Amino acid sequence: MSKVNGVLLDITGVLKEGDSPIKNSVEAVERLREKGIKVRFVTNETQETKNSLVSRLSKMGFTLTEEEVISPCPAMAHELRRNGLRPHLLVHPTVLEEFDGVSTENPNCVVIGDCAEHFSYENMNKAFRVLINMSEPLLYSLGKGKYFREDGELVLDVGSYAACLEYATGAKSKIVGKPEPTFFQTALDMMQIKPEEAVMVGDDLVSDVGGAQGCGIKGILVRTGKFRPADERHPEVKPFFIADDLYHAVDHIISLL
Amino acid sequence: MSKVNGVLLDITGVLKEGDSPIKNSVEAVERLREKGIKVRFVTNETQETKNSLVSRLSKMGFTLTEEEVISPCPAMAHELRRNGLRPHLLVHPTVLEEFDGVSTENPNCVVIGDCAEHFSYENMNKAFRVLINMSEPLLYSLGKGKYFREDGELVLDVGSYAACLEYATGAKSKIVGKPEPTFFQTALDMMQIKPEEAVMVGDDLVSDVGGAQGCGIKGILVRTGKFRPADERHPEVKPFFIADDLYHAVDHIISLL
Ligand SMILES: [Mg+2]
Ligand SMILES: [Mg+2]
Repeated sequence: MSKVNGVLLDITGVLKEGDSPIKNSVEAVERLREKGIKVRFVTNETQETKNSLVSRLSKMGFTLTEEEVISPCPAMAHELRRNGLRPHLLVHPTVLEEFDGVSTENPNCVVIGDCAEHFSYENMNKAFRVLINMSEPLLYSLGKGKYFREDGELVLDVGSYAACLEYATGAKSKIVGKPEPTFFQTALDMMQIKPEEAVMVGDDLVSDVGGAQGCGIKGILVRTGKFRPADERHPEVKPFFIADDLYHAVDHIISLL
Repeated sequence: MSKVNGVLLDITGVLKEGDSPIKNSVEAVERLREKGIKVRFVTNETQETKNSLVSRLSKMGFTLTEEEVISPCPAMAHELRRNGLRPHLLVHPTVLEEFDGVSTENPNCVVIGDCAEHFSYENMNKAFRVLINMSEPLLYSLGKGKYFREDGELVLDVGSYAACLEYATGAKSKIVGKPEPTFFQTALDMMQIKPEEAVMVGDDLVSDVGGAQGCGIKGILVRTGKFRPADERHPEVKPFFIADDLYHAVDHIISLL
């Protein structure tokens, strides 16, 4: 058993739900910091900018900086610039600014993020038509989540809408975000630690726990957020540990030190 | 080569596009009737009732009766009543009347049809939540079309939105409509003919041509409607014949008599 030197935390469903911190989660993050454990926030959030997310979390009582957050839009914008790609952006209007300076003229790919109510028939058709007119449709999906919990209700996530476009066009989406290994690797690189020294805590069994464990990072599932009892009987993904919430997950992490 | 005694015609993209008949298609149907060939209209249309469809086609100059049309909603309503199922209906508001008398209280399945602009995030979430709360999610899809052409543009069809719900919930949709064999069989039964005596004409390579040919019916693809040149190079579905439009398809059928 390696020593734990870094913890990767999912945000929605682990730290907070909607605009409320999940019980004792502010204290849980503080306890990690007090123990000298490095912390990074690894989120698939694409409904708001990193900047707005950090300021909202700060207001809830969390202590964190923008540099500690790894989120899909800035990573995607970097990838687009690096490859000279011009996307049709099917993303939430609030995150458009994270794509500043990326040309969207005469698009040669589609980027789909979590658009919530902007997943209208009209917007889906616009993205669909860009793809169906390409000989090799190129679709990037900012995460592949099926659904998440918001205001006490489950709602469809970006992965489900990406599946709609995949079925319609024959495209196979490339993922930027969890569970893609490079996304977790970015967090490890920033902390300068090895996978076996890290723990990921999340409420998404496949994207958070499965994704992390695919990289050799221990995955803890919390019974908050989108957690459903059936997750404990998943045929393939078996979490390293299951905790009632982040506070208890941190208890367990500290017991490993 | 068996004699052709019955012809199954797709409607959208074969007889008409939007509110306009496709060139010479009115005459083409008349020619079949003059030759004494039985005709049935086998459609996956779920944006309007059979009644409204027939009256709209009549105004365009076609001669047909409601009894000659096989469409998904009435078939679905019959299936629901027969099995005592109570659907959550994610269908276009105009076809709700085709489900009159079907109880939708405390739903134990979801029926998805082509909702067009009613495929909102809110409506998709409502259907999703019914499914995710079932231990064995039961989803019926009225056809599995990927897209179709409307007012000169390709738009997403019900199959693509069913794929979204399938990905989100793990359900595998049951199809009522083309390419399901029972749908074609209904048309054959009505005409009292065998599959080898029938020809299906459609613009959807997979649903129309592939579906028919899976039942032993010859499938003719027309280069109208949603047809795309790539359809002629499909790895699996090889039409019996490809015609520029319905008029030329009928020419070919008559040449077989
Ligand atoms: Mg989460
Ligand atoms: Mg058609």
